[in-house]
Amino acid sequence: MHVQEILEKKRDQIKLTQEEIRYFVDGYTQHKFPDYQASAFLMAVFLNGMDIDETTWLTDAMLHSGIVVDLSEIKGIKVDKHSTGGVGDKTSLIVAPICAALGVPVPMISGRGLAHSGGTLDKLESIPGFDVNLNLDQYRNLIKKTGLCLIGQTEEIAPADKKIYALRDVTCTVENKSLISASIMSKKLAEGIDALVLDVKTGSGAFMKSQQDSEELAKMLISIGKKMGKQITALITDMSQPLGTHIGNSLEIIESVQVLKNDNLPIQNDLRVLSIELAAHMIRLGGKAKELEQARSLANQVILDGSAFEKLKEIVNKQDGNEKALDDFSLLPQAKCNRSIKAKEDGFVKNLDALKIGKGSVLIGCGRMTMESKIDHSVGIILKKKVGDHVKKDDTVMDIFYNDPKSLEKAILYFDQSIEISKNKVEPPTLIIKTMG
Amino acid sequence: MHVQEILEKKRDQIKLTQEEIRYFVDGYTQHKFPDYQASAFLMAVFLNGMDIDETTWLTDAMLHSGIVVDLSEIKGIKVDKHSTGGVGDKTSLIVAPICAALGVPVPMISGRGLAHSGGTLDKLESIPGFDVNLNLDQYRNLIKKTGLCLIGQTEEIAPADKKIYALRDVTCTVENKSLISASIMSKKLAEGIDALVLDVKTGSGAFMKSQQDSEELAKMLISIGKKMGKQITALITDMSQPLGTHIGNSLEIIESVQVLKNDNLPIQNDLRVLSIELAAHMIRLGGKAKELEQARSLANQVILDGSAFEKLKEIVNKQDGNEKALDDFSLLPQAKCNRSIKAKEDGFVKNLDALKIGKGSVLIGCGRMTMESKIDHSVGIILKKKVGDHVKKDDTVMDIFYNDPKSLEKAILYFDQSIEISKNKVEPPTLIIKTMG
Repeated sequence: MHVQEILEKKRDQIKLTQEEIRYFVDGYTQHKFPDYQASAFLMAVFLNGMDIDETTWLTDAMLHSGIVVDLSEIKGIKVDKHSTGGVGDKTSLIVAPICAALGVPVPMISGRGLAHSGGTLDKLESIPGFDVNLNLDQYRNLIKKTGLCLIGQTEEIAPADKKIYALRDVTCTVENKSLISASIMSKKLAEGIDALVLDVKTGSGAFMKSQQDSEELAKMLISIGKKMGKQITALITDMSQPLGTHIGNSLEIIESVQVLKNDNLPIQNDLRVLSIELAAHMIRLGGKAKELEQARSLANQVILDGSAFEKLKEIVNKQDGNEKALDDFSLLPQAKCNRSIKAKEDGFVKNLDALKIGKGSVLIGCGRMTMESKIDHSVGIILKKKVGDHVKKDDTVMDIFYNDPKSLEKAILYFDQSIEISKNKVEPPTLIIKTMG
Repeated sequence: MHVQEILEKKRDQIKLTQEEIRYFVDGYTQHKFPDYQASAFLMAVFLNGMDIDETTWLTDAMLHSGIVVDLSEIKGIKVDKHSTGGVGDKTSLIVAPICAALGVPVPMISGRGLAHSGGTLDKLESIPGFDVNLNLDQYRNLIKKTGLCLIGQTEEIAPADKKIYALRDVTCTVENKSLISASIMSKKLAEGIDALVLDVKTGSGAFMKSQQDSEELAKMLISIGKKMGKQITALITDMSQPLGTHIGNSLEIIESVQVLKNDNLPIQNDLRVLSIELAAHMIRLGGKAKELEQARSLANQVILDGSAFEKLKEIVNKQDGNEKALDDFSLLPQAKCNRSIKAKEDGFVKNLDALKIGKGSVLIGCGRMTMESKIDHSVGIILKKKVGDHVKKDDTVMDIFYNDPKSLEKAILYFDQSIEISKNKVEPPTLIIKTMG
C-alpha cells in the first residue's frame, strides 16, 4: 500500500477501506510519509467528505494510535460529557461534580481554548495550584476514589489526533464534520467511558453555525459512538449568545460555583437549565435514574444539599488546587481595570453575538492568538443583559475586566458590534433545540 | 497577506485575485511557507478548479518566477510546437528541422519522459554526444545561426513550475487542466516565442483520456496564450494507439529520420501525416505561407529536397551530437535481445492500447520509474501492425527490443494485453480530430 493510492482514491471520491484509513493514520503518526502528502489528503477529505463507515474507521485508527484507558475495575457506568465548544460554556465544571456526587463516575479528559472558544483546562488552571497534568495512573486512581478526575490530553491519548489536528490547524482543514467527529470521538473513547452526552452547539459562537450542520455532526457522532458500542445522547443547544453571564477563565469558575451553590443567580439562568439537563442525561445513562424527570430532580437535589459543590471542592483539593478560592473569589486572579459597555438606545436586546464576544475575549487575553500565547486567567466579561431583556439607553449591557488598555481598544470594537437592540419585544433563543440519540 | 487566507478562499470556491496567486507562487518559490500548505492549496485547486483568469495569473506568476528569454534581435516570427505527451510521439524531431529549413526560427525547450509518456530530451540524448544542456546564451546564438535549438529547461526558466511540479507529482495533483496549462504555458512563453502550435493528445495514452477533456484543455491553453499576446493554434489528435511505429528513444530517432528522408515508410503513416500538419500550422503562423495547403506543400518540399534532414544534421552537429548516426543507425545504442508478440487469432487489429504499451515500454527501460531511474536509450518497440490492419494468427504485431529479460517478463503482460483483435473490419482512428484557435 502507498499513501498516494489512498490520496488518489479520496481525490476521486472513491470510498476508502478500513485498511487504507489505518495505513494513513498509523503511517502519518509514525512519520512514514511527509506532512505535504497528509495535508493534501486532509484537503481532499475536507472537500470530498467521508461517509459514516470511513469516519468510524478514522476514529478507530486514531483511537488505537495510543492507549485506551481501561476503567473496568471501577464500578458503575462511566459517563462523560463533551461540548463542541462555545463562548461562556462552563457546564463541564458543573455537571462533573453533580454526577460524581450521585455516584456516576466521570472520567473527563478535556482540551484547551481554541480560537474564540474556551477550554475547560484553562478555566481549571485559574484556580491557584490546580494540576491538570496528572498521568493516567493518577487519573484512574482519582476516579476510583473521588468519582471524577479532570485532566488534559496526555501524550499516550490518541497521538494521531494530536499530530493530525496540528496539521489541520495550519492547512484550513478544521471545519469538516468527519475530521471533527473523529478528533472528538477518538479522544473521548480513549478515556475509558461507557456512555457519553454530547452538547453540540449551534449558532454564531459555535463551529457549526447552522442547525442543520449541527444536527448532521450530532448524527455522525452518535453513529460512531454506537458503532463503537457506547451509549450516546446528543443535545443541540444554542450558541448564538454566550452561555450564562460570565466569560473568561476565573470568571467562569465563579459562575460555576454560583450555580453549584445556588447562589446569586439571575432569574433567567440558561447556564443552570442546560447544566441540569446535561447532568440529567448523564445520570440516566449512568443508570442512576430511569426517567429524565427523576434524573433532573436528583441533579437539583445535589445542588440544593451542597453535595455537588462539596464534590467540586474535593476534586480541586485532590488535584492540588486551593479549594478555598471556591468560597473566597478574591483568591482567584483578578483583573485590574474594568469598563462598561452601555446600551445606545432603549429597547430589547436582540443579539449578543457569541462569535464577536468570543473574538473580543481572546483579544483581551481569555484565549490564545497562537499556540504559544499565554492566557490571562483574570480577564473576561460579565453580561448584565441577555437576549430578550429590556434595556434603557445607558444601561450597562456588559462589564469588561481587563489588564492591558491597548488590547482593550481593539477588543472593544467586537464588544460594541456584538450588541443589537430592537424597538420590538424579542424572545430569548430556544436553549435546548433538540435531543438526539 | 497570508497563505492560509488564499488556501481558505480556494477551499471555499472563492475566486482568487492576481495578487493572491502571485503571493502563492512567489512565496512558495522563495520558501516563505512550507510544502504542506502548498500541497493543501494544490489539492483545493485540483478539486475546486481555477477559472481562465486565475489560470492566466498563475501562468504569468510562474513565467515571471524566472527569466523570459528575449529573442527580439532574431528576425522572423519565432514558433514552437508543444505536445501534451503520448507514446511514440516524436513529431518535435521532425517539425523543428522542417520549419527551420523554411526560415521559421524554432526556439524549443523540451522536457523529459514523464510516466508512460516519452520526452524529446531523452530521445535526443540517444544520439551519441548530443548536448541538451546549453545555457541561454548558447541557445540564443544557435537559433540566430541555425534557426533552431533543442535544449532542456534550465534553472532560470520558470523555477516556480519546477518546484510546484515536483510537489504535484507526489501529491496526486497532476491531472488538473489549470495546473497543466500553467505549467506548459509558463515554460513555453519563457522560450521567447511569438506563436505556438499545440498538439493536445486524446485517448488512453494521453493525460486527457476523453475528447471533451482534451478540448477543454486546448481551449484553456489557447485563452492563456492569447491573453499573453501570442498566436496559438491547437490540434486535438489521437493517442488511443501509439503514434507511428517506433517507441523507445533511439528507435524514435530512426523513425524520425525515415520520415525526414522519406525513406522506408509504411503506406499508412500517421506520423508523417501529423508531422506535416503540425509543421504546416507552424509555417503559417511563422508567416511563410498564407494558406494551410501551401504550408503543407512547403513542408513536403523540404522533406523531398533533403533540406529538412540536412537541418537536423546541422543542429545535431552544432549540439555536439554525432550526425553520422543519422545515416548509420548502427551508431545508435542497440538492444541485445528481441522478442516478437504475435497475433493470437485471425482478424483486424481493433486496439493497440497506447497506455499499456507505454507502461510496458517504461518497464523495459524506455522511461523512468522514479526521477532517479536511468533510461536505457537502446530499448523499445516496433509496431508491425496498426489499428485497422488485417492480421493472421501468428503474424507479428510488435517486436520488443530489450536488454533485461527480467524486466521483459513484467512488461510482456502489458504488451499482450494492449492488443485486441476483432473478427469484423475495423476503421483506423481519426488522427487529427479537430483544429482550434
